[in-house]
Amino acid sequence: MLKGFLEPASIAVVGASENTMKPGGKIVENLISKGYEGALFLLNPKAQTVQGKKAFASLAELPRTPDLVYIAIPAPLVGDTLAELGSMGVKRVIILSAGFGEINEKGRQEEKRLAEIADQYGMVILGPNCLGVMSPVHAGKFAGLLPEMKPDGLDFISGSGATVDILSEQAVSRGLFFNSFFTVGNSAQTGVDDVLALLDQDHTPQSPKHILLYMEKISSAEKLLNHARSLAQKGCVIAAIKSGVTEDGERAAASHTGAMAVTDTAVQALFDKAGIIRASSKLEMVDLASALVMAKGKFNGKRACVVTDAGGPGVMTTDELNRQGIKTPLFKPETQAKLAELLPPGAGVKNPVDLLPTRTPSQIAETMKIIAEMEAGNLDYILIQVGDPGFRDNWPVYEAILKSMETLDLPVFASFSTSISSGEALKKYRAKGKCHFEDEVSMARAVGRMANRPKIHPPKPDPVDYDKAKVAQILNGATGVVSPDKLRQVLMAAGIPTPKELIITTEQELKQAESTVPLPWVMKVVGPLHKTDLGGVVTNVSREAAGKTIERLMKIENAQGVMVQEQVQGIEVIMGLSRESGFGHLVAFGLGGVLAEALKDVRFGLSPLVPDEALTMINSIKALPVLKGYRGQPGMDLNRLADILTRVSLLARDVPQIKEMDINPLKGQAENLSAVDVRIIMD
Amino acid sequence: MLKGFLEPASIAVVGASENTMKPGGKIVENLISKGYEGALFLLNPKAQTVQGKKAFASLAELPRTPDLVYIAIPAPLVGDTLAELGSMGVKRVIILSAGFGEINEKGRQEEKRLAEIADQYGMVILGPNCLGVMSPVHAGKFAGLLPEMKPDGLDFISGSGATVDILSEQAVSRGLFFNSFFTVGNSAQTGVDDVLALLDQDHTPQSPKHILLYMEKISSAEKLLNHARSLAQKGCVIAAIKSGVTEDGERAAASHTGAMAVTDTAVQALFDKAGIIRASSKLEMVDLASALVMAKGKFNGKRACVVTDAGGPGVMTTDELNRQGIKTPLFKPETQAKLAELLPPGAGVKNPVDLLPTRTPSQIAETMKIIAEMEAGNLDYILIQVGDPGFRDNWPVYEAILKSMETLDLPVFASFSTSISSGEALKKYRAKGKCHFEDEVSMARAVGRMANRPKIHPPKPDPVDYDKAKVAQILNGATGVVSPDKLRQVLMAAGIPTPKELIITTEQELKQAESTVPLPWVMKVVGPLHKTDLGGVVTNVSREAAGKTIERLMKIENAQGVMVQEQVQGIEVIMGLSRESGFGHLVAFGLGGVLAEALKDVRFGLSPLVPDEALTMINSIKALPVLKGYRGQPGMDLNRLADILTRVSLLARDVPQIKEMDINPLKGQAENLSAVDVRIIMD
Repeated sequence: MLKGFLEPASIAVVGASENTMKPGGKIVENLISKGYEGALFLLNPKAQTVQGKKAFASLAELPRTPDLVYIAIPAPLVGDTLAELGSMGVKRVIILSAGFGEINEKGRQEEKRLAEIADQYGMVILGPNCLGVMSPVHAGKFAGLLPEMKPDGLDFISGSGATVDILSEQAVSRGLFFNSFFTVGNSAQTGVDDVLALLDQDHTPQSPKHILLYMEKISSAEKLLNHARSLAQKGCVIAAIKSGVTEDGERAAASHTGAMAVTDTAVQALFDKAGIIRASSKLEMVDLASALVMAKGKFNGKRACVVTDAGGPGVMTTDELNRQGIKTPLFKPETQAKLAELLPPGAGVKNPVDLLPTRTPSQIAETMKIIAEMEAGNLDYILIQVGDPGFRDNWPVYEAILKSMETLDLPVFASFSTSISSGEALKKYRAKGKCHFEDEVSMARAVGRMANRPKIHPPKPDPVDYDKAKVAQILNGATGVVSPDKLRQVLMAAGIPTPKELIITTEQELKQAESTVPLPWVMKVVGPLHKTDLGGVVTNVSREAAGKTIERLMKIENAQGVMVQEQVQGIEVIMGLSRESGFGHLVAFGLGGVLAEALKDVRFGLSPLVPDEALTMINSIKALPVLKGYRGQPGMDLNRLADILTRVSLLARDVPQIKEMDINPLKGQAENLSAVDVRIIMD
Repeated sequence: MLKGFLEPASIAVVGASENTMKPGGKIVENLISKGYEGALFLLNPKAQTVQGKKAFASLAELPRTPDLVYIAIPAPLVGDTLAELGSMGVKRVIILSAGFGEINEKGRQEEKRLAEIADQYGMVILGPNCLGVMSPVHAGKFAGLLPEMKPDGLDFISGSGATVDILSEQAVSRGLFFNSFFTVGNSAQTGVDDVLALLDQDHTPQSPKHILLYMEKISSAEKLLNHARSLAQKGCVIAAIKSGVTEDGERAAASHTGAMAVTDTAVQALFDKAGIIRASSKLEMVDLASALVMAKGKFNGKRACVVTDAGGPGVMTTDELNRQGIKTPLFKPETQAKLAELLPPGAGVKNPVDLLPTRTPSQIAETMKIIAEMEAGNLDYILIQVGDPGFRDNWPVYEAILKSMETLDLPVFASFSTSISSGEALKKYRAKGKCHFEDEVSMARAVGRMANRPKIHPPKPDPVDYDKAKVAQILNGATGVVSPDKLRQVLMAAGIPTPKELIITTEQELKQAESTVPLPWVMKVVGPLHKTDLGGVVTNVSREAAGKTIERLMKIENAQGVMVQEQVQGIEVIMGLSRESGFGHLVAFGLGGVLAEALKDVRFGLSPLVPDEALTMINSIKALPVLKGYRGQPGMDLNRLADILTRVSLLARDVPQIKEMDINPLKGQAENLSAVDVRIIMD
């Protein structure tokens, strides 16, 4: 299906115009000037020719059914034309016409009609109010830059046409190439996630692509998640902007494309699970794309070396790498000695390498080779930054770097920050099909973001003692707050541990309690409603005091027994489930207590989790040192914690009717953890 | 003094060369080609002429003493030449020659000698190993771009020559101008802070300048602080990079310019106090400079409006402003109606304004005028982003924006992100002397950073009951851990509250205790050494239990009395002092307890603080909600807290021999706060 958008054998333009100030004129001009080689059918009822080519008065006159149709006629006429195209057997339509949902409610209704028509005929439509599609085969985009497109370039799917234009300018000026631009406009039928799905379906693992997304709305979180993960398995990396995530930004997005409010938290959880690197600006996305392209598929390490031709940029680059958690290890003495032999006195040879502004192309080539050979196994990336001291042409320097990029096993990232004085040399460099950064700190940041990108955790079988069927059966039909009884059953079926307890009635039975419930105890009278008011709850009961306590508690009116419960000691954490419209359930994890709550030190994931994913969440809270044990206070076993968090997430998967769940606190030490206070609210 | 660097009436170049591949040749070429109009004396013992100008064989032959001398001769010859220049009465020397401290220890020693010679003759020397100085009057810089310099441009003082080259390219491509570049190289005598001091001395409040600094080392934190604050009072804003602040970056900086390790925390505290906006990359600094220039002196508000010609960029800009704490308030209905009248259907008119890609120059001009007039008082900034839809020349659009910048009272910030397709139009725009951003999110971030920059708190008199003389007298000559007795005296003299207490010996005296020490009490036996082991400390003593307790405590061997102390209730915070080499004392503030410590939720300031400054620190901890009172727990009076923190900071000012001080915890509710546990360690 997508191939027909990228490589259509024939294209029709409905509303083809002589006037290139209009979309219907500009798109024809662009298709022709960029050398579209397939059959081009121009439709215009009033003209014999359009821009020097034969025009057709109606669709009926076309010699055959076109692969792809662009519509650029007034909004009120679009619906009927679309239906006509559908009945002709056209499968792909791009609606450039504006004047729909972005104007008013009537427009929104009309968009719904377009989607219905498209669905009825099994068509995929992009738009309305979009900028078109561009590929190496055709330039179906009616505004902005028309850069050279290459089959091995980036794919960019965008909910904003202007964002494609601007981002592509920024990208092209850095030597990046694209394979496709997809603009989805108002997404009447097909959103960014839908195009991603089509892209995934057409994609083979043999040709990993890096994909950029700009989204104001996410039509289906599930679709985005599944296809992003599937693409990742094929070796693709996705970088994406989801805008409209702050209070004012959300209002702006709603008025722009009618996006629904989605919390920033939910977006982050979704991206984390989908392995998508999140960007907040086009510039940041261009930086990420540059890093991905230069990495040549090697983007997992955390050790880098920095090569510069001046000290200052070397220091700043190293600072930024460190901030991103990337180390710049000292070179081995042999490597240092070898570099010192090669370079003049005053050069830095330890990492960072400062070649000094006198650097020659051969010094650069030799330095890169020495590093790559002698530090193989100690390094994951080489970052090089060169300026332009102004004494010689910079091109031979760039050429030497280009060769290193091509010949070395280690990925080489390059920043050339003198776009004015080395303008001509940079053009030559880019003409070789290579990209570069313009700022070395941005380069270091992008490499760090790439190396730290969220990792996808493959699905795992449920824990063996998690009883999916039983969980669903217990909560089946429950509404509102789940009763203590059902709660206990659900937790048991899910394998979520609760404090050990035993109900007894006599002092004699304390022996039995002693063997099953660890001391000290909490003792609660069973039977009366307002236990606490009646003095029916006693904490911190020792074995010695237990006899007298049970005696007293059994004397309380209506006492049917005494619950002897483990008094759990240790750290308190919280776990929770909440539903996010369109995203399923968010799973929350954080340290318990007022302070942790005030500091918002809580991580969120998207249900269901696998244990590794839960562990990543747990490991990323700031209070991790407390969790691990602090100042003599014993810590929690993090794997056990991750296991329990996984089980909580499975509850949401298996009982979607859970509206909210809170474990506050889950408490304990080492592996001995218990959900002390649990609440589930059903729809 | 600085004027002679910027506007020298005569310049001598020692080591002037025919070879423009050498610094001594290139600098002559640059001075001549950029039209230096003063007297230029070229020194070369072996040539009659250099680059077509008469050459002098020795300094003795010069017709008069030059205002400024550049030295570009081999390192071993520099010292003697400098001495000769000194004896001739030369006051300003810029040493371009390399081969000093950046090479080896011998070079470091030679640098010391240069500084001594300079000091002896009252000379100011820049370098060695620097790139030179550039101003509107002369281009004394031997590498990189030589942009047009303007008296109302930015000043840039840098510890890295390459950083000047690269940053200026980035800046010039955005339409920024400079008044000066100062490169200080190895800073044998004069560092970045010293040049800043000279700049401050020459500066009048009539011509506020924005100043950029790049520093790997800070020679004198005090100098930087004082002159930055003085410049701020003259209306200048400083943006600065201090690099070498991470573990690896520090190592890189040490090997580059021999910078000493300084913690990131100390740098931040210094910048905060000095009102300096901190940047971590040249690109970020260029963004900050652009924001400062476009702000036209109005950089304090937190309300902005966003105008774009496409929806997507508007949403991203709004998101970033919100992240920076800048609101984009909805326009008044009248404003919305007026804009809706002006703009086509589908345009956004609420804030952000989406003009749509069809925007005309007159629509832009009119929109800006309507906003500025009708929303006057509701807004502090207008941010405009335009792309290039490709239908018309973008210059008239830029021209309309340029006019708005010039005519409107509200500062207008502009991002033009299509540097390729609007290349020619952008050149015209920059030729008008205006700058622009290239990315709208970077623009929003820079405006936010500017509005949120640290504010300078003017000095205030000490609190009336802070007894400076007494504090100094008590701690005079103390070493090691300060004794409990002295500690109590110092805290009292400083007005730092401690828990109320009274020493009594009999039950009868409890009446007196009741009237002075609030209940409940902590009762401690006075006399015996290991009180706790003897059961000599009892907490939470009620009035009723006090009689029996005193009776028992007085029976302990060696009991001389019983200390009746207030048992302080409430929140716990920590305050501290620590010394940072070269920076004086850092003052720390944070919430008490293990968790707060683990989360590193602590703010640092530079001693001495004024109460407003202390309050800013207190208000910036993440746990602020807890401090203010949380879930029924009463909070602390923040002004009282700031007062105490100020007093702690004054101790460091008045007794610099304090090595460390900890109050852990300071505890209490509302205004009733007490330093419960205090430790001071002296040198």
